Amino acid sequence: MDLVNRYIEEHKDMYIDWLREFCRIPSVSTQNRGIQEASTWLQSLFKQIGGTADILETTGHPVVYSEFFSGGKKTISFYNHYDVQPEDPLEQWVCEPFAAEIQEDKLICRGAADNKGALMARICAIHAYTQVYGRLPLNVKFIVEGEEERGSVNLSDFIESHSDKVKADLCIWENGIVNPDGSFELKLGTKGILYVELIASGANSDLHSLNGAIVENAAWRLVWALNTLKDRDENVLIGGFYDRVANLSDAERKALEKMAYPEAETLERYGLDRFLLNLSGIALKEKLLFQPTCTICGIDSGYIGEGSKTVLPSKARAKIDFRLVPDQDPEEIVRLLREHLDRNGFEDIEIRARKGSRAAKTDPGHPLVQKVIQAAKKVSGKEPQMVLMNPGSGPMYQLCQQFGIPTVGFGVGNSDSRKHAPNENIFISDYMYGIKLAAMVIHELA
Amino acid sequence: MDLVNRYIEEHKDMYIDWLREFCRIPSVSTQNRGIQEASTWLQSLFKQIGGTADILETTGHPVVYSEFFSGGKKTISFYNHYDVQPEDPLEQWVCEPFAAEIQEDKLICRGAADNKGALMARICAIHAYTQVYGRLPLNVKFIVEGEEERGSVNLSDFIESHSDKVKADLCIWENGIVNPDGSFELKLGTKGILYVELIASGANSDLHSLNGAIVENAAWRLVWALNTLKDRDENVLIGGFYDRVANLSDAERKALEKMAYPEAETLERYGLDRFLLNLSGIALKEKLLFQPTCTICGIDSGYIGEGSKTVLPSKARAKIDFRLVPDQDPEEIVRLLREHLDRNGFEDIEIRARKGSRAAKTDPGHPLVQKVIQAAKKVSGKEPQMVLMNPGSGPMYQLCQQFGIPTVGFGVGNSDSRKHAPNENIFISDYMYGIKLAAMVIHELA
Repeated sequence: MDLVNRYIEEHKDMYIDWLREFCRIPSVSTQNRGIQEASTWLQSLFKQIGGTADILETTGHPVVYSEFFSGGKKTISFYNHYDVQPEDPLEQWVCEPFAAEIQEDKLICRGAADNKGALMARICAIHAYTQVYGRLPLNVKFIVEGEEERGSVNLSDFIESHSDKVKADLCIWENGIVNPDGSFELKLGTKGILYVELIASGANSDLHSLNGAIVENAAWRLVWALNTLKDRDENVLIGGFYDRVANLSDAERKALEKMAYPEAETLERYGLDRFLLNLSGIALKEKLLFQPTCTICGIDSGYIGEGSKTVLPSKARAKIDFRLVPDQDPEEIVRLLREHLDRNGFEDIEIRARKGSRAAKTDPGHPLVQKVIQAAKKVSGKEPQMVLMNPGSGPMYQLCQQFGIPTVGFGVGNSDSRKHAPNENIFISDYMYGIKLAAMVIHELA
Repeated sequence: MDLVNRYIEEHKDMYIDWLREFCRIPSVSTQNRGIQEASTWLQSLFKQIGGTADILETTGHPVVYSEFFSGGKKTISFYNHYDVQPEDPLEQWVCEPFAAEIQEDKLICRGAADNKGALMARICAIHAYTQVYGRLPLNVKFIVEGEEERGSVNLSDFIESHSDKVKADLCIWENGIVNPDGSFELKLGTKGILYVELIASGANSDLHSLNGAIVENAAWRLVWALNTLKDRDENVLIGGFYDRVANLSDAERKALEKMAYPEAETLERYGLDRFLLNLSGIALKEKLLFQPTCTICGIDSGYIGEGSKTVLPSKARAKIDFRLVPDQDPEEIVRLLREHLDRNGFEDIEIRARKGSRAAKTDPGHPLVQKVIQAAKKVSGKEPQMVLMNPGSGPMYQLCQQFGIPTVGFGVGNSDSRKHAPNENIFISDYMYGIKLAAMVIHELA
């Protein structure tokens, strides 16, 4: 592997250029921007480095599917996405969100960490490996979707109509971080997600607020309905919500105990003096990894501009995401939410639910996972940090767990990568490191 | 007065042109638009029709002050404002909000009803009267402020430094409507107002919503805080809020019984099937006129655009107005609100309060009010409808009640004038009617 690593170092500038070019495409799926550009750009890169590459249509944005067939016995797949989150609030960025500027070894760009950096690192690894050895030691598939940031709403349909393309012995999941001490984070599971909008409606248009005395206010309806969903101790009050949430196993508890979590750094970075409910230690980690959430992502009603407009809002909307743990079923949660609202006198509140995804987890003892652990050790010289459950979400259940495919995720982010937030970034050094890890994983698995 | 009425009819087109020209100035005080243009436009019109006219500076927008001195013994003042509400939501307008289009005898424009139509009717009346008789039979003052739509925040200071200009035997208040049966509405009081923003703050920027498990969510904090302010039966829960709210007197109850309120038409217009709490009859009218309110005018937090951004908001803001009844003191309410939030564990919620105004009311038996009633009868041939309390607000207490000046309001709106809402409008016929009433009032009072 020394030859491959040397090749990677020698082509550092080119690999950085590839990544910046990709990052500059503003592929914001939820706003339908840059989708065609990003997918065709990827397709031509896959072809350029010797793979097949197809743009496979879905009801939404297409999946870019690429194969590097070596004739080997093993097949691994890489799951990634070419879409990114919206870039607002703009005023908080230190540079243009899609300029892909490099400042002090840091590439700052929407999508750099989530997850264009990780995807490009894998592509560069394939390139370097085949340039040095002529061919790969196993078969590789890339499944790169364009709707992860809006809940992978069409991936299930894709999986159903392309089940042959999904098959693999191991799936390398989209992302992960490099810890401050240089060790890799390996992710073995992911929470599920359900995203809903709650909508309250009153009169047929906004009215003068003097009518607040006698006309129902959509904003108040929404506030009262939201208030019934979660109490101030963070208990979700929807009947049945916790029924499928399992207690921690002994093995999971032990793994949590071993897992480092940089509490002080995180608080400082977020400008906070405490975590929710004053949590710390294992209770904090358990909440983050193994407890479901109910999060208001946005609320919008009435006049929100400057100054004081005295208006009675006719509409109020809240966007809410639920992060789900294994065995919670998003469709069941929607049903429970409807029942809860009805039971509490909020039959008038409309629910618009997106198709969710279930949580998934892989056994850290799986032999192929063990090989990835070996590769991570070889590249970094350090024991990787195992994260049993990613507190974010992804379609791991649909793509892997339902077919019994084990998954492990790693990538090129850092503990301050600001995913989904202004000034998203990765370190160039972590990017180079991630290319080497992807190459080493291919080598070890073969 | 026949000569004056004939003169008014003969100059109808000119008076409509004056109004449309004024309406086309987008004098949105809360957004600092069109203020200088509107105030200087008014100043030159006052001068053109024979008055003095000064633009008197305040810390905020200036007051346009005009006098028509006749040497008569009585002095009346007109209180109006040249500012208007913001025009959004734009997509709900049938024409440009400031184009001042006339469709089927209706002038549609932001500010037409509130209250440029009423102000112009008074100015036209002065013009017609002086053109016919050479001079007015009493002294007239116009106090036209530019910040009514943002709570008359600097009017108190103006009143303090120009107390001579405020003195009058009777103040004609800004506005009122012409009922569907052609009778005038005369307003004898107005609710007070307090406008506040509540602001919840969490981390130093919006975060990926996976952090919802462990980081405080500003939107949830705000929802929980708001929920403590009012229950679902519309009871405001702020301790002491109702302490100064008086029971209805017998006279008030009788007046309420006599007062018509078009329940069915109002419901149909707003697209509703019932009023708040299923109220109707005298209970509905009492709530509208004599009960204080707590109304969410707007809420803003996190991502409110299209699609599903999974974000944990770092800020959440609510705009709230309280409509106050006689003896409630806005400064006291702010204090009670702070105490309430603190007592309920919301010390972290910031309150930004604007200077409010107190409610005011005038005795319908006052001799000068009786003369206005006579004038209204003469113009319309019908008994005017007395509204003891305007459910909207205005600085009537500061400008009049604190000096013992009685007030009565009338104007050119209609029961579907859509003040503060899209498609604000007045009927041209009501405008003409309003010019005649203003002229008749001057005549009767002298």
